[in-house]
Formats: sequence, structure tokens, C-alpha cells
Amino acid sequence: MMKRNETFMRSMMVLLLTLGSFLTQALPLDDAKQTVIENKQIKVTVNNKTGSFTVLEKESNHLWKDDPWIQTAGLLTIKNKGKIENLNISSSKKIEVKKEGNNKVAISFNNPSFDDGKVAEGIIIQTELRLADTDASLEVEVVSIEKGEHNITELRYPARAFSLETDVDKGAAVIPQKQGVICPSYISPMNGGSFCMWDDATYYKKTSGKLPLFNNGIGLTMPWWGTHTEKTAVIGIVDVSARPDMFFNINNNGQYLFNSKGVMSPYKRIAFLDPVWKVNRENERKLIRYEFIPKGTHVDMAKAYRKQAIKDGYFVSLKEKAERDPNVNKLQGAIYMGVYGGYPHYVEMPGMAFTFKELQDIILTTHDELGVDNAFFHAWGVFSNFVPNCWPINENLGGVKELKKAVDLTKKYGYLYSSYHAYSATLENDPEFNTDLFARDNEGKLKNTGSRWANIDQNKQLGLARKSLHKEIAALGLEADITDISFATFPDEDNTGLFNLAKYIDSLNLVNGTEHGQQQFIPFFDMFEGLTYLPNPNLVQFSHRAPLFNLVYHDAIAIFGKIQDPDNQISINGDFRVKSLRNILFGMGTTIFFSPYEFEGMKEMIQIANQVVSPVNRETFFAELTNHEYLSDDFKVQRSQFSSGTEVIVNMGPVKQTTKSGDVIPAYGYKVTFSDGKVSEGSFKLTFN
Amino acid sequence: MMKRNETFMRSMMVLLLTLGSFLTQALPLDDAKQTVIENKQIKVTVNNKTGSFTVLEKESNHLWKDDPWIQTAGLLTIKNKGKIENLNISSSKKIEVKKEGNNKVAISFNNPSFDDGKVAEGIIIQTELRLADTDASLEVEVVSIEKGEHNITELRYPARAFSLETDVDKGAAVIPQKQGVICPSYISPMNGGSFCMWDDATYYKKTSGKLPLFNNGIGLTMPWWGTHTEKTAVIGIVDVSARPDMFFNINNNGQYLFNSKGVMSPYKRIAFLDPVWKVNRENERKLIRYEFIPKGTHVDMAKAYRKQAIKDGYFVSLKEKAERDPNVNKLQGAIYMGVYGGYPHYVEMPGMAFTFKELQDIILTTHDELGVDNAFFHAWGVFSNFVPNCWPINENLGGVKELKKAVDLTKKYGYLYSSYHAYSATLENDPEFNTDLFARDNEGKLKNTGSRWANIDQNKQLGLARKSLHKEIAALGLEADITDISFATFPDEDNTGLFNLAKYIDSLNLVNGTEHGQQQFIPFFDMFEGLTYLPNPNLVQFSHRAPLFNLVYHDAIAIFGKIQDPDNQISINGDFRVKSLRNILFGMGTTIFFSPYEFEGMKEMIQIANQVVSPVNRETFFAELTNHEYLSDDFKVQRSQFSSGTEVIVNMGPVKQTTKSGDVIPAYGYKVTFSDGKVSEGSFKLTFN
Repeated sequence: MMKRNETFMRSMMVLLLTLGSFLTQALPLDDAKQTVIENKQIKVTVNNKTGSFTVLEKESNHLWKDDPWIQTAGLLTIKNKGKIENLNISSSKKIEVKKEGNNKVAISFNNPSFDDGKVAEGIIIQTELRLADTDASLEVEVVSIEKGEHNITELRYPARAFSLETDVDKGAAVIPQKQGVICPSYISPMNGGSFCMWDDATYYKKTSGKLPLFNNGIGLTMPWWGTHTEKTAVIGIVDVSARPDMFFNINNNGQYLFNSKGVMSPYKRIAFLDPVWKVNRENERKLIRYEFIPKGTHVDMAKAYRKQAIKDGYFVSLKEKAERDPNVNKLQGAIYMGVYGGYPHYVEMPGMAFTFKELQDIILTTHDELGVDNAFFHAWGVFSNFVPNCWPINENLGGVKELKKAVDLTKKYGYLYSSYHAYSATLENDPEFNTDLFARDNEGKLKNTGSRWANIDQNKQLGLARKSLHKEIAALGLEADITDISFATFPDEDNTGLFNLAKYIDSLNLVNGTEHGQQQFIPFFDMFEGLTYLPNPNLVQFSHRAPLFNLVYHDAIAIFGKIQDPDNQISINGDFRVKSLRNILFGMGTTIFFSPYEFEGMKEMIQIANQVVSPVNRETFFAELTNHEYLSDDFKVQRSQFSSGTEVIVNMGPVKQTTKSGDVIPAYGYKVTFSDGKVSEGSFKLTFN
Repeated sequence: MMKRNETFMRSMMVLLLTLGSFLTQALPLDDAKQTVIENKQIKVTVNNKTGSFTVLEKESNHLWKDDPWIQTAGLLTIKNKGKIENLNISSSKKIEVKKEGNNKVAISFNNPSFDDGKVAEGIIIQTELRLADTDASLEVEVVSIEKGEHNITELRYPARAFSLETDVDKGAAVIPQKQGVICPSYISPMNGGSFCMWDDATYYKKTSGKLPLFNNGIGLTMPWWGTHTEKTAVIGIVDVSARPDMFFNINNNGQYLFNSKGVMSPYKRIAFLDPVWKVNRENERKLIRYEFIPKGTHVDMAKAYRKQAIKDGYFVSLKEKAERDPNVNKLQGAIYMGVYGGYPHYVEMPGMAFTFKELQDIILTTHDELGVDNAFFHAWGVFSNFVPNCWPINENLGGVKELKKAVDLTKKYGYLYSSYHAYSATLENDPEFNTDLFARDNEGKLKNTGSRWANIDQNKQLGLARKSLHKEIAALGLEADITDISFATFPDEDNTGLFNLAKYIDSLNLVNGTEHGQQQFIPFFDMFEGLTYLPNPNLVQFSHRAPLFNLVYHDAIAIFGKIQDPDNQISINGDFRVKSLRNILFGMGTTIFFSPYEFEGMKEMIQIANQVVSPVNRETFFAELTNHEYLSDDFKVQRSQFSSGTEVIVNMGPVKQTTKSGDVIPAYGYKVTFSDGKVSEGSFKLTFN
């Protein structure tokens, strides 16, 4: 009786609330079956039977549907007798949808069913949908999960919400993997690049999977993602305390759910991005806030997150950093020159090690012969010991005296210099290798035996830095420091050790760089060497690169290429031509990484970088990246704009194209309009003689 | 008593046999512990306790050791209560080593132990080592496996034999993955390329794994592999009836065996390649024949297999093929031009489809404006239906009349032409999609739902070809045919259906091409569009590409790039510069694959290919690739030689280098010496304006 009353009251409320919008929205009125909350911008309708919900974004009149395949609200992963099953929580024996006040709906899913129809007794999932009073924003929270006797590992919720129908919705899924990608939700007209692979992938497993947050490989660098059509966008921003994975399904028709059954999928191709909550991760709010943005694109999503990042304290501007340490200004337009002497992998490696006299020559040549205006030299291989013992300076290579001459040269030319430092690694081939510094688990087992660059306990890293870094600064008069690896990830554990190391390095008031980098460390660093797209064949095959990280953080941290994929190297990310064009488009600096014997072969590229990339990087260094667009059907022609007034158009393809505004951009060409109105145009050519 | 007598007799025999070589070889004489067979070139010593064996290659006096980690003879994979365990068969309760005659040793391993010490009762593995009378060759055969009550899946045997010790043995593991790679067994001096990744990988999981034979992805294209030091080589050739996987461990220290235990590996870094026999695959001889080659390299290995390939009937020379169909001569020096109209993925795809008039223009321009001497046009998108219905010719695009004009143009210029054909696929987006032609298993389930390009039953493919191909030949007067996909793999099943299709196509006496291709289909085809290295990040990261397939088959099949990785595209395999250099080095033709709107952007590359690649390909087309060497420490400078007398030296790196013979090869440059002694030199430059 009680229940019936509640349902009745709820229905009445819904009736009253929906009546207002009924005439304009013309949705079918079926109150007993749905529960509605709404404000001026959006209307959330919960299906009382399935517990799934739709969102109407009113300005665009776009209805974001619930799961178009099976109308599930969420998928619960249970390990059952060694087998992993994903339970449709909308199959629960009891689903209660309760409106609380005007803006909140509480939903509980009790006792979901296994595939074979058996009931998973004792499981209760409580969720809430909370509408903002006035914003177009909706909080979705998993409030609690009672597990009963079950081994529950994950909850995908909301599942397959905010999806795009392939080739019907002409938008994109937007994913901040590394620097960022967009995955268009349409195949036709052409999507550029490897079209065949793109189309095929939509029927294969590789267009779906799970990505973690904050790792050095395939992870997302920021805790948000979104989808947009041609007229509206939605971004989900994960609560700062939480650490879900992101499940992606890009234009896939779900065939992967049917292969084992030997039948074809009956579903349409769709694109969606779901949070996957780790059920056993406590001390977090399993909360994602969706913001709805009429006319939004990937740029608006990034800008929505930028506000959050500023709130969360991750954003400290380069301007502020340069005020504290004016040497930061030397990063403007700098070419990042990694001179690799075989170290840190080997000390005095034959064929690769350089003497400090040779290093001086390289610096001198860079200035005098190549005419480079700004550079940051990073010398790999100046110590007598293997990492993590970055001291003493190798006497066989020239000792402090000769290395200081090299450093003095960089100062004379207004360049920056750092030796290579790492405190996170001991190497198996080090004659003094031992496991004393390794991280251990509770049982005393070594934790990271399989990862030579991250085997040292994070809490022991500060001690290693303090052993020698101050000596080196004193001996060489350093103005900059690069500390490799430690900050390439943000492990899902107590990171006090890493923050202590970061704070110590920051306290030295040098120009600070680190490999890859994660947003949590931006306040302590001036440059990240990283965020490149590694050769992960998944997303790369059916996405276009987008400067999502830079749209949020360009004016907070200088981004260069990653040592594993420098601009001089031909890779899945392009050759020097394509990488240079992407550098000016995204507002990044050039990275050249070479062994001394290769320097001769780098000269031409260094000169071109100084002429093409550095001027743009110099002018935009402290500016916000305000806009980024794809101008051609094949996505090869793109434009970006900076708050400095700089505009960059590039064509990363082999074919001359004309933009809608009439700009003709040659193959591998660009047009830069500087803040003073001056225009610089050019293109790369492959010649043969 | 019987047993003791046998052992005694065996020891006596061993004593008598080994006495002869004792003085020269100075090996410890411990007859009760070992059993020896030997001939003039090699001496095989079986450890009676472990059943493992060593091989002394006498000319080089190199001892190929048994497993240097735990001296196992082999590893048996058992699924035990859902858990997979690898049993060391040298832990067997009883191991019998029996010499039979002068050249044979029979070994039996009875009742091996699980990790926890429990005995796997009822398992008996019988193997034989058989020495050739006079050759330096040793057959190793798994004669039988009694499984007892166990779920045995695989046997790695011999395990970790013929290994190289990293940085001590300066040789390589040689693997015919796709066109082929070598994996050097040393880190220093430099190995070129991404040195850091290379070194790190040796401690990570990615330097070990299993590769299958004959697939379209990561598989081996030929059933052999080998290792060599600086002074001697060994190749293992798998029996033609067998289908093992190959396990690789490249300079890895076996850390992957210890990560779960939380300790460091106590082993040295080594490189080895093992056959992994599928225990339940019957009707095969689990036989691998090792040939020992003093002073051998990857070239000698390939040449050893070439003999086998000729014996097995896979080798039919291009010369013979051209005698039967003189149009094969038109492939000499041809640029393979794939014109992609969005088909086979879509019919009349907006933005990509071309009219036959446009196709005529492209052909005309290629000849008149670009001056291309030889070309093979492959037009994707000329039919009104989706594959596998390659008929009728699309009237909307110009119909038979206009397409014939295009074909006639190719004939006029001495070019070849084929439309795109595939009989292996039905596509989900085809409006007439159904599963009628799908392969099904015994229960009627669809077998290949997850692979849209291989879902059609191979036995139905000939019927599909016969429906329309003859009509198209008649209508257009075709001289060439490309049939995609079907022959990209050699499935491990009855392949009668594929051979029937191949024979039918061959019977039409056209110039026949197919995607990727496998050696089993060489007799029926003139060109393979494929064998490129796909972006599999494993081997690619720590290997150097080697023309192993071409060392065996260059004069039997023309090899071009793969459509998924054409020479005009920048990929993990290089950009146009690097790919063109590799083409002339390996004796391959150029592949340009583009959508009509991109043609303008291809012109420069087509002209360069005609000038640089085609002349070499033309001269070497019918010639054997006789040699291939790495000339620089960074492996970037390489030389190849052909039986036509042609010699090619290329430098695929960005740095000018001088060879030991004094040739200066510029960055991205080459030097070709033609058979008439004429020298052609040049290099690619990146310019900017």
C-alpha cells in the first residue's frame, strides 16, 4: 500500500512538472512509467521500469537517449565461479525510482539477474541523479553498492548513455587520451587517413575497450570525456576523488557481445563513453557531473574542464611561474635538444657516449652555425654512476670543469641546460644493482619487478635527489632541471612521496621539466616532455588528434615531444613535416633527440624548426589556446587560435586544399597569422636529387 | 639388471665413439652421464639426466648449449583445474636416453612433475634426434605424447636450445615475420633506432611471446627460424606437414617468470626461438630439421630454406610465369596504383567514388604528365553491388563503355589494370546483407562473425568468382586480376576451397595478384600486394627489417606494399623516403594508394618512384636476391645484391655515413650499381619554403 501511494504521489508530481513542457516538447505523457526532473535547460526522464534515463537538452531540442541496444541503466561485473559476467542492472527484481524534492531522483536496483536468469540475491545499488538549479548540469552518483555474498568488481554506470548513432549523428566522441583525440561518429564523407581500417574497426573488437586514468601508456590525462552531435554536446567530468576507468565503444555495433554465440549482432553502430567504477575502491565519490553545451564541440568540453582544473588547483599559469623565475622566459620558442649518450641505460657507452668537449661543440654549432635563438639542452650521460645515483660528474668525459664550460655556453646564448636525472629506477645491468630501494608489498615481495623504470619506492626518491642535486647545481650553476619518469604517472595510491619530490625540486627555483607529466604535477613544473601518442594501435586507427590537453593547460605548462617519439623520428605520429605542423597548430615546442654521431643529420631539421616552429611557440607561449577546428572533410586541414591573437592553419596531408574562407593551404603547408597581422606561409617539400 | 646392462653397454659405446674426438675437442669425458652421436660436421651430446642436448658445430668449434637457465629439454603445457602450468619435462621421474645405431638417439620423458612437486602420472613423451650421415643437419622429432588423464595442450621442444647470450654472442635471432626481421643479440655498440626502447624491452614481457604461422597479422610467412653468432648459424626448418607456433625470447632475462613471485630473475639475458607443438594437432610430423651453417647469416638461412621451398613445390619462377603469359613482363618496374573509391566498403561513396571518366584522366595524366613507364592500376569501386557480388559495372559511374576506355588506355601505355574483387566477405552495411554464405561450424553456428573480411565459407568462393569474373573479362578485355583477401592467410584446415579458387583464377591466364599472399599460393599468382610490417609494436621495436621472404622468393613473386600501408603514407615503416629506399634494397615495387581527390598530392611521389624505384625493380625483376648485409653499426646502411648483377646500397637514416669500402651514402640516400656498371646515386631531402 505504502509503495502504491508513493508511486501515485510520484506520478502526480511528474504530471504536474511535465504538463508545463508538454505543449512545447510534445513527448508522450505516460506518467506512471517515468519520473522527471527538469530546469530551464534540461529535462531528465527516468524510466521507472528500467531505471535508465534520457536527457532532453532544450535549446537544441536534442534528446540524449538511454542505452539504444537494451535500455540498460548499468552493467555490474561479477566474478562468479571464475567466470566474469556483466549483469544488466535493469533486469533487477526490484527497481525503485524516487523523486526527492524538485531536482533529485534516487534510484535503487535490487537483486539483478545473471544471464541464465538466476537472481544475484543481496545486491542493492543506490544511485542519484541531481539536477543543478539553474545550470545545464546533472550530477550522476553511485551512492552505495551492497554486495551480498558476491564478488563484485566493477559497475559501468550510466551505461551507453549519451550515445551517438553512427552516420546519423555527425559528431564525435572526445577522449583526452594523452594530448587528446576525437573519434568522429560518422564514416561518410571521408574521415581521412586509413579509411579502410577505420571502417573495418567499427565491426571489430578494437573499437571498444577500457582506458585507465593517468598512466604513461594509453591512459587518459584528464578525468573527463564527452560526445557531441552537430548541434549539441555533453561532457562528463569525474569527481576529483574518484578513479574510474573509461569504457569506449566507437561506432561499434556490439558484435563483440555475439561472437561467442556464433550469431550477428542485431544492434546499430553507436559511439559512447561510460565510466566504469571500481566497486572496491573506497574513499571516493563515484560521481560524474554531466554538463550540457548547446552548439558545443571538443573545444567547449575542454574549456568546461579548464574551469574545473582551475578550481581543483591544477592550473598555475606559466606567467606566474615566469614571475617567480624569469628563466622560464627562456623556454619561449625553445628547441628541446636531447643529447643521448647511451645513459641512463649504460655509462660511457661505446659509440654513443660524448665528452663534454663534444657537448660544447654541439652547443656552439647550434648557436653559431645553425643560428638557433632558443634551446633547452638535455644531456643524457654525464655521471659516473647509473641512475638513481646522479653523481659524480664523469671525469673520463671531462669532469666538472669541461661540463661547466658547456653549461656556461648555454647561459651565454640564453639557452637552458639540464643533465639527465632519475630517482625512480635501478637498472639490472648496473654492476651495483640491488633491490634495497625497491617498493615492497606487505609481505615483503618486490612490487615492481616488471618495470625497471619504476621499481624504486616513491618514498625513497626525495632522499636520492637530496643526495646530489644540490652539489650539481653548485658545481655547474644550473638554471634548469629535468627529472625523468617519476611524474609520468599518477599512481592510484598515496602519492605523498612523489609530491615531496616535486616540492623539493620546485623549491630549487629552477626551470623544471619532467617526462610525460600528469596534471597533478603542473603546479611544480614548467615543461612536460611528453604526452605524445604512443604506438597504441587502438584509438589511433580511428581517431583524429586534438589538442585537448593544451586547450586546458597550454598557458600553464610548456609541452614538448616525448623522447621515445622525437620530432626527428618517423613514427605513427608522422615524420618531421607532420610533427612540425602539429607543433605550431597545438602550440608546442620542437623536440630533437639524437646520439652525438647523429648531430650532423639533425642540423637541417633544427634550422627549419627554428624558422617555422619557434616563432609561433614564442608568441603563443603564455597564451591560452582558445580554439581548434577541423576545416576539411578529411580532417587534415585544421585551424587553431590563441589568446595572443595568433592564428594557425595547417594542412597535414599530401594534397593542397582550399578552406571555406578561401585560404589555399599547400600539401604539408601552413599559414600563420601573427598578433601583429603579419602572415607567414610555407610548406614542406620532399625533393630528390 | 637389464637396465643396468643397457646403460653399461651404452656407456661403452659412447666411450668408444667419443674417444676419437677426445683429444681434439678436449671435452670432459663423463660417459655415464651423456650420450653422443656425431658426424664430420657436428656432435650431438645428450645429457642422460635431463634429456637436453648440446650441439658442437665443429668447423667453428661453437657449442650450442642446452637451456642456459634451467637445462630443461622441453616445457609441457597442461591445463590443470583451470590453471595453466608449464612442466619442465627434465623433471620427469624417469628419463631414458637410448642410442639406436650411429645416428639416432631416442629419448623418453616419463611422468613429469608439476611446480608443486606432484607427479603428472601417465604422461610419456618420446622424442628422437637423428643426425644426417654426411650433412651438418639434425632432425629433432616429437614422436609421440601419451597424455594420461591430463589436458595437455602444447609442448615447447627443444626448449631454449640454440640460444645466444646477449652482448656476449654478437649475432641475431632471425624471424620470417612478414617480409622478415632480425633481432640482434647485442645492445652495444648501438643498434640504431629507438635505442632506449630496445634496451628496456629486454627486461619487459614484450620481448617474449608466441607467433603463429601464415596469418595476415603478426604471423610468420615461412616455417623456419634461426640464430647466429659472429661465426656460425643454425636454422630450424619445420616439416611441411606441421604447424607449430614459434616462441621467441629476445635478449630477455626471463623476468616474466618471476614477476608474480615478487623477486628478480636470476638468469642472464638470452635470445632463443622455440617450436611450440600443438599436442592435439594430429596428422602432422612434429619434426624440425636443424641445419648448421659455419659463418652463416640470415642470408644463408633463407637460402637453406629456399632449397626446401623448391622441393615442396612452392617456388615457381616469374620467368616461367612470364613465358606462359607475356603480360607478366608488364609488372617489371611497375608502380602499383590503387585508386580507392570508397569501395568495397561503400558503393558510390560521397567524396570518394570516381567516375570512369575521372579514372581515364588519372591514367592519362600518369602517362602523359608524370611520364610513368610501367604501372598497374587497381580500381576500387567500379561495381553496383557490394562484395562478394563483383558485378555489374556501375552505370552511374559510366558503365562498361567508359570503364573499357580506361582499360584500353592502360593497354595502350603498356600498363596493367584490374578492378577490385573479393569473394571472402559480406559486409554488414550492405543493404542486402545476409549470412547465407557464411562458414558455419558443426552446430550451425556462424564461424567468423568477428571478421567481416573472412566470413564467407571458402568452399563457396569459387562459385562467387565464376558468377561474374568471365563477364567482366569479356566486357573489358582484361589482362590482369586482383582478388583480395582470400589468400592473405593459409588457415589451418582443409584449404581445398581456396586452392580451387586459386586454380580457377590461374586458369584464366591473366596477371594475377592478391592481398598479402602466403607461400602456398605462389604457384598461382604473379604478385602479392602485401607482406608489409603492420604496426605490431612487439618485434618492430627491437628488430631490424630483413628481406627474408625475398631472399627465398624474389624471383618467384613480385612484392608490392600493402594497401593498409602504402608508400605514400607515413607509418611505423617510414615515410615515402624510407619506404622507397627499402623498395630498391629489397627489390620491391612502389605502391601508391589514394582516393581520387588525393591524386594531385601523389604526383610528386609517383614521379620520384618512376625515377628511383622502377629502374631497379625493372632490372632485378626476374633475378634472385642473392645477398643482404647491414653495413653500419646502427644498421641504417644496408647493401643487397641480385643475380642480375645489380647492387644496391641505401642509408635509411638521417645521417650521412661512410661504408668500410669507402662509399659515402648521404642521409636518406642510395647508390645503385646496375648490371652494365652504370651507377645511380641520390638522396631524399626535406625542404621548406
